[in-house]
Amino acid sequence: DTIFDPTEHPHRRYNPLIDEWVLVSPHRAKRPWQGQVETLDEDVRESHDESCFLCAGNTRINGEVNDNYKKTYVFTNDFAALKIDTPEFKTDDPLFKMATEQGESRVICFSPDHSKTLPQLSISAITDIVKTWQSQCLELGEKYNWVQVFENKGAMMGCSNPHPHGQIWSQQQLPTLVNKKQHALSDYAKKYNSNLLLDYAQREAQSGERVVVKNEDWLVVVPYWAGWPFETLLLPRFALTRMVDLTPEQAVTLADALKQITTKYDNLFNCSFPYSMGWHGAPYDGQEHSEWQLHASFFPPLLRSATVRKFMVGYEMMAESQRDLTPEQAAQRLRDVPNVHYKEAK
Amino acid sequence: DTIFDPTEHPHRRYNPLIDEWVLVSPHRAKRPWQGQVETLDEDVRESHDESCFLCAGNTRINGEVNDNYKKTYVFTNDFAALKIDTPEFKTDDPLFKMATEQGESRVICFSPDHSKTLPQLSISAITDIVKTWQSQCLELGEKYNWVQVFENKGAMMGCSNPHPHGQIWSQQQLPTLVNKKQHALSDYAKKYNSNLLLDYAQREAQSGERVVVKNEDWLVVVPYWAGWPFETLLLPRFALTRMVDLTPEQAVTLADALKQITTKYDNLFNCSFPYSMGWHGAPYDGQEHSEWQLHASFFPPLLRSATVRKFMVGYEMMAESQRDLTPEQAAQRLRDVPNVHYKEAK
Ligand SMILES: O=P(O)(O)O[C@H]1O[C@H](CO)[C@@H](O)[C@H](O)[C@H]1O
Ligand SMILES: O=P(O)(O)O[C@H]1O[C@H](CO)[C@@H](O)[C@H](O)[C@H]1O
Repeated sequence: DTIFDPTEHPHRRYNPLIDEWVLVSPHRAKRPWQGQVETLDEDVRESHDESCFLCAGNTRINGEVNDNYKKTYVFTNDFAALKIDTPEFKTDDPLFKMATEQGESRVICFSPDHSKTLPQLSISAITDIVKTWQSQCLELGEKYNWVQVFENKGAMMGCSNPHPHGQIWSQQQLPTLVNKKQHALSDYAKKYNSNLLLDYAQREAQSGERVVVKNEDWLVVVPYWAGWPFETLLLPRFALTRMVDLTPEQAVTLADALKQITTKYDNLFNCSFPYSMGWHGAPYDGQEHSEWQLHASFFPPLLRSATVRKFMVGYEMMAESQRDLTPEQAAQRLRDVPNVHYKEAK
Repeated sequence: DTIFDPTEHPHRRYNPLIDEWVLVSPHRAKRPWQGQVETLDEDVRESHDESCFLCAGNTRINGEVNDNYKKTYVFTNDFAALKIDTPEFKTDDPLFKMATEQGESRVICFSPDHSKTLPQLSISAITDIVKTWQSQCLELGEKYNWVQVFENKGAMMGCSNPHPHGQIWSQQQLPTLVNKKQHALSDYAKKYNSNLLLDYAQREAQSGERVVVKNEDWLVVVPYWAGWPFETLLLPRFALTRMVDLTPEQAVTLADALKQITTKYDNLFNCSFPYSMGWHGAPYDGQEHSEWQLHASFFPPLLRSATVRKFMVGYEMMAESQRDLTPEQAAQRLRDVPNVHYKEAK
């Protein structure tokens, strides 16, 4: 009989963070692609764009004027998905269950420079972003149980403005995915008297097989259970429950890790690599939560080139995620690209 | 204090089928869209295309020649994600858990006519598709526990060939999403001694608020917990655990419901409406499964027009699905469009 070969045989991998499986069909990478081809964004942008709602000093769609900011800049989303003053209401019918939600949605400009994206900013500018995430989490964590920090990068990821920016949505209830992680992390802590993601980071650092970036404090891996082709998980190598607990030194090493992974992404297909990224850590509910470990996930859609993406449709929507190359193959490819951004290398 | 208004106030709705919540932010529909605009597919196609791998009598990429089929046609996917002869192997490490999977992936051509899509086929031609789904489920259900019938329609949904077709992936293990439904349906049956989806169909038929299509046997609703803007759920109004259990008469009324909902979709924005759709019913594991009820879901990405879609990114990937209009508003809009396909009405 044949011996199992992960790069050849269809298999499923288990994601212990959310109790879901992923179908890995590595031989599928060989099929020719005759479907949708994305448009490549090759616009050269100015550092300041008069028509941009996010540039410093410009007037936004609702008439408000942006500060003349020099580093980062945070304001309330003009079309916020969550609002402070939503009245309380809920129903408990098992088939028609709902509850109103209170919260706030904010936008964070990463830099006044309209022409840059994260990997093109200096370590010190990225450290400013990390510190802004920290102060936002501190402020919003006092009012809300959950603070969701995330970034949609690129038109392919529904981002409607190329100005470097992210978002912060805070709310009272734990969102679905976070709730799943809360259960998985608690269960693991009870069963093994240990921290799932800290154990995982140690074993990945040892094996090296899925490691893409490593510095003294942080590890970026293509997780064993990655769904998206070049999905990565950014993990601290020390115990850290929340964004607010980072020391100033760790904020700097985090900025370094962020610059490294986003640079590698851009260098993979020599394009501004689209992704959604976001942070999960312990809820701000006044409890300690030693079962938690802060981490960021990057979900990038590209599969073969700057214009050919992976579609999570059909089988993926009805059954489970499916991938066309192994996480180990993806990690190898990301490790192999240069560490200097392709636009600076020219 | 203000009174809760579902069309104004952010709230979360609970999906009892998969134990997930959806954030509804109906006021967000007002925001202007400056992001990605999709290409409109306005190609006029011939009934037979020499270069199409799915047309009758043509040679496929692997050299095989398609039958000269007149109705539907099923063949094994040339780049199958699941294979029959995969060797058995698994690991049980809690952080690195995997198992090989055995299965088959097939393609089903809906019609020899390259130029048509589902809503443009006759009831009798659609009945042939339903009967092919039935015979495929019968055959594959004897070898595998799970048979996933689905269709990706449109380039936006990763479909790489406009020839009307769907797919059938069968496998031994229950996929993640199906496993969740298995748990939810069993729990409800135990708790209420009743069938979740049969109860739900009855209540939706009574209220009418979210009903889009209704005939003697079938109901199409925008479910109370819909994630995608114009997501629908197609439900039988009688007890039915599996596709294979449909009577010939019910296959005809199902074809009628399918023609109605896909026609309404195309008429919403006067375009060939992209979607992924798929069927879930009881597993083929030799058990009765009275807690199950066969149903189909349609997940269409369009939000505002033929070229502006909803992006399930950032918050949606990190937290939970978010929608910009209420399910009741979506149902109303789908009810309001004509029942005759816009291409035939001209
Ligand atoms: O098999 P196809 O149509 O080539 O591929 C399409 O459907 C598959 C099943 O949903 C997906 O995995 C692919 O990403 C998508 O492009
Ligand atoms: O808020 P934005 O950037 O306008 O909108 C984008 O991000 C949101 C949060 O992930 C999504 O709900 C939208 O679909 C997407 O287009």
